[in-house]
Amino acid sequence: MNIQIKENERIDDLQFKGLKIIQNTKGFCFGIDSILLSDFAKSIKKDAYVMDLGTGTGIIPILLCEKTPLKKIVGVEIQQEVCEMAQRSIHLNQLENKFEIINTNILAVPSLFCKESFDVIVSNPPYKKINTGVQNQEIKKNISRHELTASLEDFIQTAFVLLKDRGEIYMVHRPERLVDLLSLMRKYQLEPKEMRMVYSNQKKPPCLVLIKGVKRGKNFLKILPNLYIYDELGNETKEIREIYHRDD
Amino acid sequence: MNIQIKENERIDDLQFKGLKIIQNTKGFCFGIDSILLSDFAKSIKKDAYVMDLGTGTGIIPILLCEKTPLKKIVGVEIQQEVCEMAQRSIHLNQLENKFEIINTNILAVPSLFCKESFDVIVSNPPYKKINTGVQNQEIKKNISRHELTASLEDFIQTAFVLLKDRGEIYMVHRPERLVDLLSLMRKYQLEPKEMRMVYSNQKKPPCLVLIKGVKRGKNFLKILPNLYIYDELGNETKEIREIYHRDD
Repeated sequence: MNIQIKENERIDDLQFKGLKIIQNTKGFCFGIDSILLSDFAKSIKKDAYVMDLGTGTGIIPILLCEKTPLKKIVGVEIQQEVCEMAQRSIHLNQLENKFEIINTNILAVPSLFCKESFDVIVSNPPYKKINTGVQNQEIKKNISRHELTASLEDFIQTAFVLLKDRGEIYMVHRPERLVDLLSLMRKYQLEPKEMRMVYSNQKKPPCLVLIKGVKRGKNFLKILPNLYIYDELGNETKEIREIYHRDD
Repeated sequence: MNIQIKENERIDDLQFKGLKIIQNTKGFCFGIDSILLSDFAKSIKKDAYVMDLGTGTGIIPILLCEKTPLKKIVGVEIQQEVCEMAQRSIHLNQLENKFEIINTNILAVPSLFCKESFDVIVSNPPYKKINTGVQNQEIKKNISRHELTASLEDFIQTAFVLLKDRGEIYMVHRPERLVDLLSLMRKYQLEPKEMRMVYSNQKKPPCLVLIKGVKRGKNFLKILPNLYIYDELGNETKEIREIYHRDD
């Protein structure tokens, strides 16, 4: 198949089972957060129906299609050109039977699917509240970074509506939003069950937090061991090399 | 002054500025959590009015009287004999002008003081929900360990009523209760501002979490560097030695 590459786009090799992804170099490119979230969610069970809220380039579904025995993953993305680009990445990886893209605001999703019809929700939502931080000039980057079109509460409420009882949600966010994240998950009965802090190295404060919640799960949070990206010498840690399949 | 020591009691030397404390060897003896909480709260300002909810032996107020320039600290404790023992520790340390004990349930405290009259609340509340875990045969230990007479929500709601606007709350709890802690603090407008995880060593999951909240503070949680009790060789870390004044 001949996949068209447009101006400012490039094909990146994911260096994992031959997977590739199309990204716009002037748009929001995927980062380590999506890679870590895909790894954090790798216990997704056989034949699971999964949704990725705010899928962007489709990086998380593409990785989950290979890392897990899921049945089907639906990626929801509001930005039309980003969706179209993700659609080409689906063709590039021949994932048409497993990964479907829907171009809409996540607020519209509950009206498109049956309630409580998904086993797992994953999401790497925008990290910043509207009107906070330096807003990027490029609107595409802004929608990916700031809660312009949907708030964290919208993401979590949508997940609540779509998830089956005991269904799982996996999210990545910034540590400074931890109170928002945990209290909204509790509010929408997506009880936080596992938390893992991600650190650039042992000397710095955490840069990301990974959270797993279970719909109507029992109140008990397990704190997993910290995940360090670099060791004291500035080299990638063994765990990061494994997640990136550097040594394969 | 002659301080009476009763059966099963002993006087422990706090090895800090000559402070001593009376403990009942068959009751709940203070632990590292109280020491760490006192250190975490050491930025309490000059002339502050402070309350310790669930003060037990009085360990936290005794330490804070020496570590900070507070004006007055009120310790609330439901157990009558524990209060009476703490009262003798007040005399032992000649802290009568700074540290006052009140023998009551924390639920009764809002009716005893003016609303919004305290600058700081500290609390090392019972860690376990009622009917969870192995309940200790000795009721005294049970009240200190289980939420038998007041829930975490009661502690936080009481703190909300008593704290001035922008007043600070410092708490220590178990990491598995982090969701309860953060979401209840948010609910009662005691916005979590700083969080510090405490680890026995780098190989184990965290054993405690220290939280600072500010009444009606802005939503932004700062994660402080982890606190390790032991290093990789099994020795106390430099920070722990400093907190315990081991090298003084």
